[in-house]
Amino acid sequence: MNAPPDIAAAEIATAQTAPPEIAALQDATDPSRFGAKAARLARLARAGVVSAPGFAIAASAAGKLVSGEAPALSRALSAAIRRLEAVRGRRLGDPSAPLLLSVRASAGEGATGAAAVLNIGATAAVEAGLAARVGLRAARDLRRRLIQSFAPPALGVDAEALEHALHARLKAAGVAEEAALDASALGALIEDYLAIVREETGAPFPEDPREQIDRALAAAARAWSGPRAKLLRAARGDDPDAGLGFVVQCMALGLGRGVSGAGFAQARCERTGAPGLSGRWLPQAQGEDAAMLLRAARPVADGPGALDPTVAEALSALLARAEAVLGDAARMEFTVEDGRVEALDAFPMPRNPRAAVRIAVDLAEAGRISRTDALLRIDPMLLIDHLHPSIDPAAPRDVIGRGLPASPGAASGPIAFSAEAAEAAAARGTRAILVRVETSPDDIRGMHAAAGVLTARGGMTSHAAVVARGIGAPCVVGVSDLRIDLAEGALVARDGRVLREGDLVTVDGAAGEAIAGAVAMIEPELTGAFATLLDWADEHRRMRVRANADTPEDARVARGFKVDGIGLCRTEHMFFDKGRITAMREMILADDEPSRRAALARLLPWQREDFVELFRIMQGMPVTIRLLDPPLHEFLPRGAREMADLAVAMGVPVTRVERRAAELEEFNPMLGKRGCRLGITLPEIYEMQCRAIFEAAVEAAQATGAPVVPEIMVPLVSTNREMLHLRASIDAVADAVRRETGAAFDYEVGCMVETPRAALRAEDIARSAEFLSFGTNDLTQMTYGLSRDDAGKFMGDYLQLGVYLSDPFQTLDVEGVGELMLIAAERGRKGRPDVTLGLCGEHGGDPVSVRFCEVAGFDYVSCSPYRAPIARLAAAQATILSGRRALTTDAA
Amino acid sequence: MNAPPDIAAAEIATAQTAPPEIAALQDATDPSRFGAKAARLARLARAGVVSAPGFAIAASAAGKLVSGEAPALSRALSAAIRRLEAVRGRRLGDPSAPLLLSVRASAGEGATGAAAVLNIGATAAVEAGLAARVGLRAARDLRRRLIQSFAPPALGVDAEALEHALHARLKAAGVAEEAALDASALGALIEDYLAIVREETGAPFPEDPREQIDRALAAAARAWSGPRAKLLRAARGDDPDAGLGFVVQCMALGLGRGVSGAGFAQARCERTGAPGLSGRWLPQAQGEDAAMLLRAARPVADGPGALDPTVAEALSALLARAEAVLGDAARMEFTVEDGRVEALDAFPMPRNPRAAVRIAVDLAEAGRISRTDALLRIDPMLLIDHLHPSIDPAAPRDVIGRGLPASPGAASGPIAFSAEAAEAAAARGTRAILVRVETSPDDIRGMHAAAGVLTARGGMTSHAAVVARGIGAPCVVGVSDLRIDLAEGALVARDGRVLREGDLVTVDGAAGEAIAGAVAMIEPELTGAFATLLDWADEHRRMRVRANADTPEDARVARGFKVDGIGLCRTEHMFFDKGRITAMREMILADDEPSRRAALARLLPWQREDFVELFRIMQGMPVTIRLLDPPLHEFLPRGAREMADLAVAMGVPVTRVERRAAELEEFNPMLGKRGCRLGITLPEIYEMQCRAIFEAAVEAAQATGAPVVPEIMVPLVSTNREMLHLRASIDAVADAVRRETGAAFDYEVGCMVETPRAALRAEDIARSAEFLSFGTNDLTQMTYGLSRDDAGKFMGDYLQLGVYLSDPFQTLDVEGVGELMLIAAERGRKGRPDVTLGLCGEHGGDPVSVRFCEVAGFDYVSCSPYRAPIARLAAAQATILSGRRALTTDAA
Repeated sequence: MNAPPDIAAAEIATAQTAPPEIAALQDATDPSRFGAKAARLARLARAGVVSAPGFAIAASAAGKLVSGEAPALSRALSAAIRRLEAVRGRRLGDPSAPLLLSVRASAGEGATGAAAVLNIGATAAVEAGLAARVGLRAARDLRRRLIQSFAPPALGVDAEALEHALHARLKAAGVAEEAALDASALGALIEDYLAIVREETGAPFPEDPREQIDRALAAAARAWSGPRAKLLRAARGDDPDAGLGFVVQCMALGLGRGVSGAGFAQARCERTGAPGLSGRWLPQAQGEDAAMLLRAARPVADGPGALDPTVAEALSALLARAEAVLGDAARMEFTVEDGRVEALDAFPMPRNPRAAVRIAVDLAEAGRISRTDALLRIDPMLLIDHLHPSIDPAAPRDVIGRGLPASPGAASGPIAFSAEAAEAAAARGTRAILVRVETSPDDIRGMHAAAGVLTARGGMTSHAAVVARGIGAPCVVGVSDLRIDLAEGALVARDGRVLREGDLVTVDGAAGEAIAGAVAMIEPELTGAFATLLDWADEHRRMRVRANADTPEDARVARGFKVDGIGLCRTEHMFFDKGRITAMREMILADDEPSRRAALARLLPWQREDFVELFRIMQGMPVTIRLLDPPLHEFLPRGAREMADLAVAMGVPVTRVERRAAELEEFNPMLGKRGCRLGITLPEIYEMQCRAIFEAAVEAAQATGAPVVPEIMVPLVSTNREMLHLRASIDAVADAVRRETGAAFDYEVGCMVETPRAALRAEDIARSAEFLSFGTNDLTQMTYGLSRDDAGKFMGDYLQLGVYLSDPFQTLDVEGVGELMLIAAERGRKGRPDVTLGLCGEHGGDPVSVRFCEVAGFDYVSCSPYRAPIARLAAAQATILSGRRALTTDAA
Repeated sequence: MNAPPDIAAAEIATAQTAPPEIAALQDATDPSRFGAKAARLARLARAGVVSAPGFAIAASAAGKLVSGEAPALSRALSAAIRRLEAVRGRRLGDPSAPLLLSVRASAGEGATGAAAVLNIGATAAVEAGLAARVGLRAARDLRRRLIQSFAPPALGVDAEALEHALHARLKAAGVAEEAALDASALGALIEDYLAIVREETGAPFPEDPREQIDRALAAAARAWSGPRAKLLRAARGDDPDAGLGFVVQCMALGLGRGVSGAGFAQARCERTGAPGLSGRWLPQAQGEDAAMLLRAARPVADGPGALDPTVAEALSALLARAEAVLGDAARMEFTVEDGRVEALDAFPMPRNPRAAVRIAVDLAEAGRISRTDALLRIDPMLLIDHLHPSIDPAAPRDVIGRGLPASPGAASGPIAFSAEAAEAAAARGTRAILVRVETSPDDIRGMHAAAGVLTARGGMTSHAAVVARGIGAPCVVGVSDLRIDLAEGALVARDGRVLREGDLVTVDGAAGEAIAGAVAMIEPELTGAFATLLDWADEHRRMRVRANADTPEDARVARGFKVDGIGLCRTEHMFFDKGRITAMREMILADDEPSRRAALARLLPWQREDFVELFRIMQGMPVTIRLLDPPLHEFLPRGAREMADLAVAMGVPVTRVERRAAELEEFNPMLGKRGCRLGITLPEIYEMQCRAIFEAAVEAAQATGAPVVPEIMVPLVSTNREMLHLRASIDAVADAVRRETGAAFDYEVGCMVETPRAALRAEDIARSAEFLSFGTNDLTQMTYGLSRDDAGKFMGDYLQLGVYLSDPFQTLDVEGVGELMLIAAERGRKGRPDVTLGLCGEHGGDPVSVRFCEVAGFDYVSCSPYRAPIARLAAAQATILSGRRALTTDAA
């Protein structure tokens, strides 16, 4: 069938207007055709940053060119070369005015390309011509570099053989570096190289510049399309069948007379992001010499061997333009030839987390990028660096053991081998480093008192790790290099060194290192650019960010991190204080309900006080209080002596304590009599807690004049009948408090969704719950059938074998746990269209999980206060990426 | 708008042909209009079983009749009464030939109706006429009964006042029963009654028979529509607004001359179902006197006071007809008046489980009902009674404690206070009753050796209960009336009685009773009707029924119960045997892989032998073998002494045993390093097991000549990557065994779906699993976040409070766990259209769960061998009810 005439005409038109497959560099702006590098260079060339003339070859053309199938293309290549010759006024292979070219591969961003071939055209015939321009030594060096960079990839010559020849000549000359070889030594080295080429290939080194170009292209294309390269690209998630473009440019020599050399420069400090020219350069160098030989390299500014102020000024001017082109602080690769600066390339400069924030905020404030762009540029996890002191990278480290980086930040202090010692040190005004084989709940107070925690055993989800992250203490766990000898009171390193209680030690929770002695620190920086960025995040995010805060102290920290409320107040932590724990244990040991009620009555004022304080601190923000969750045996002492002490203190026989402890013992406490199961079978406990909450709400409202609407959360629900049952008793307590106080108040009752069944039954449950808050820690445990406390026994193996792609307690398992959450969200909304949906648990501070919550349309995430800034930024990014409307409009 | 003429005409036609709201009894066959009782009586009347003429009033009419709104209805009622008068040749209120009527309510089957009013028409005016027929005493007794049954409901007279008057007259006459009152005493009693009526109502007793009928109807309708009755109907799941129909019938007197009386009779034994007339009757009685005064009642046949053979013959003839009408063995209520039998009603006779099976099979074999009907008639749970000895209901019981009926059946034997004592008794040829405070895994061998188990503590899901159900041993748990004093070696009852080791005791696992001494037993009956019914079930069911069998012995038991294969062979139980446990412990204590492999190599031949035996016994039926599941610490001894013994036996320091035990300890073993987590991190274990399976398959196939296709099941999967990982290593072992033996064999690899995540990811998983078998025990635990071992601490409270409607470990939680199973089934089929779906776990023997599996289209259920008959019948019922096709066609 013939195509209709208009379609045929369109095809012809397309063919005629098809973009050329070889384009002048400044026209090669389309990365999908020419590759990311060519496109970037094109933009830099258009802005006058990159001035060396050049052209780009499209990925679609390279294959055809190499195979020789397209004579028209080959002719176009020749024409492009001729244009460069015309612009530069030099010609390839012209003995009097020789032109040198470079050939670089241009693939997708981040793709590993073939190495560049430099100095194409530096043939034997042009040595004199080059020498006339840059001197004989430099001329020979250019030719040596050509052979060295060209022969292995293009001719298949053994790179090591060339390397051997070079080293032999260095040895003969008695020098250490190529730069110290003189012209005659270089001449001899070139002869060595040529001999190796002849011997290995059976042919002389190709001296035709055009052949050099063709063979360089062919070699790069061959390497690119080899099976190993394809596999590598596939493994990185890139398209294995992607094409490879090229950039051909006139060489800036960097060798020869006057100030000549090569290096890199940037206009900002990579540590702080503050403005100021920095970088490194090497005289008489080309390409990446400066970056590869950092020891020998000199600073571009401010220091011995710095570039002339005029050269530096030229660099600064080019960098400013590059920053404008890239929309980001740039690192520029440059060459200086006889005092004239030429930029080879410029790309976003490397930077540490603090610099990244400063640069993004600076650029947005300067109007170079939008605030949205600034927010999207920062990986939220990088903010951790701002939130904790970190070790000065310049400071020397005496590392005595390596373990897992369990909680970020760094801290120095005297060793404390027990929680008591850490508390005693704190009482004396010194914050110690708590060093333990492993920690247990008994150590919590000591962990709070310590500046940092170090354990010899345990994994990323061990007790020490979890608690340390929660309280924001730097922590390193599983340091198997260290042996803790409690009998001797000694910490013994693998090298035999012994540290004793009180000796100074440093933990680097970011690197997972234990360091002897104190190390210089960089203090956290929560103001300036960090604060500005988070203010912007708050303007852009839709989701609320709450904190998990159990005590008034936690709540104050949370306020400092500008959260929108408390998403999880675990009331049980309030019971561990001295005095309180006694009443709690009396309650547990009581034989009947009246005795339990009497003990609970003593706990009531304490709970109420805590809640009043919480409500005051949070000033009307939402506060979600979870009713008692852990099994009662967690409140009893474990050891025989502690039980005896308790019996004496309570005035009961020790057998009674032991019997009760035995009765309460459980095979699987995680799945036992806890949460609402306690609340239903011992109703007086939740009644006391709800009374404390309501009385505190009345008191705080009267004190501040602002109403308090407490949110009461029921833990471990698995059926709506549990909710209905407890809701009735909560409502009854509220009615009683209203009657007794004569005060009106509102409250909400919600369900902590942490069993798979609660997720599946969310429609029913939402009918009796104003909010559903996903306790993703437990939900993950039950969905996987995996105890977080025990997972350490095989988590390492699982991650290493790739059975788990990530630790599901660190990053939300979107496929399993996430699906249950989506099911629950959908059903919950069916049961109650305006149900509030939130996530509490460690995942609330994980950006991937926050993004998931945004997509699921949750109302808030709640996490450790120390993670709140991360969650705020992650929430803003999630809102921006989802195209949803923010909480407030963008003020930018 | 006017209705189109044809519609109006249709309406008129409908009105004209509307069924009469008052119908002759034999025409009232529609239970939805006249109620179940009327409909049954109508069918019995048509068949000539019930001969007393009568009529029925539809539920729709009763209300209108009572309110007097429908004069036409009232006229129809009068006409119906006139028809009865004409048939009987007597008239209501006619002094010479008085007619007596009864009024009974007729509601839905099983609904509690108002009591019947008898002898309507026995007014003062007809006393002489009645006396002429039945004598003066009987005539007065009829009138007394009328007043006594009519005055309280219809006139609101206090029934107790009438009762007092009766007792006063009995006392005055110096007799114990009404039957002993003579005519004059009855006359005085009637005067007493009339005085009470006058005093309480302010009006004389209504002597107009028609008024009596109207007021009886009104009273019943009033009671029926009262709020309490409605609530009661709603609570029973009946329609609270359902109407109430009535049956009005001529009275059969049962009093008077000749053989007169009333009673009930049935043509079969209610204990065995064997044919033979039985029943009870009372002379000079009416209605339910015989049922209510059983002590005074006489047998209808074979015994002192039995009815004349001619009367008995008449009864048998009527019963045969009633059985034909009801399609079931009947109990008949009858009256005899002067030797003439009249049936009042007949309904399916009460029967115990064994009789139920016998009757259903007899009826089907006689062609009275279809085999399908026979199958649907038997509650599968009733079969339990056939599977175990039970206590003779006639035997006296000396109950010393009551607990929970944890495992059905009954057993007597000498008390053994330890597993060792039970084993020793078994060695001597005596099966003991193992009496423990609670049992633990250490007691399992003792439980196997014992005839029954009795524990003072624990619930329906305690270790003792679960194990006992699994091995089919009668068991009573939680007998808190009993105190076990191990120091004294005594079992102390609440009444102070002391039983010592060796004393005889009996457990009744069906009633939950502990009984002193031995009691007469009825042996199980697995042949005859039981076997026939199960053969029919096998013809009708679609689903396969497999057994959970861990050992060759279990497999033999399972074959006896005619299962279709083994659905779950837990290989770990094979490791607890002497010798094996030592090798197992060596493997656990080994420090490196080679030592582990050496220990496993010693276990290999044992495992292989067991598997060969299993395969031989199962003769080519499918056998699903689950790879090692429990955490390794379960194989180590617990106590200090046992650890020391182990250390000595292994020749290692005890500290090494202790250290390893401490390392393996877990917070939540249920959610720890077990199942495939073990298999992946210690691959040599599963490799050994798979090798044993494959080598056994080859050996068994060579020995029997029939191919063996083992099904290997991977436990505790939560992600498909676990399946992929293990599948690769299983396939590698299979290849190795094929190479080594030169034998070809097939096998299947499947996933035990017991984590919620495995259910959610079933599509992926099914791509690498030929079958999915739901481990509903663990799946329930994880879906609820509920440890079965710990649930006992609150399960009782939860069931009592109605928070759980049933124990989810007994009856599948269809709403939560069931939904996960449906999700998994759907997704599993998407991943592999022909994936085999099964259920293993205790739910496999629960009829409700079996029905769920049928609806979900599962291929099989697998349960304890002792539950297999229940599952076979339940599966047949499920297939019939779902309308699916059976495995084989119905041979009936």
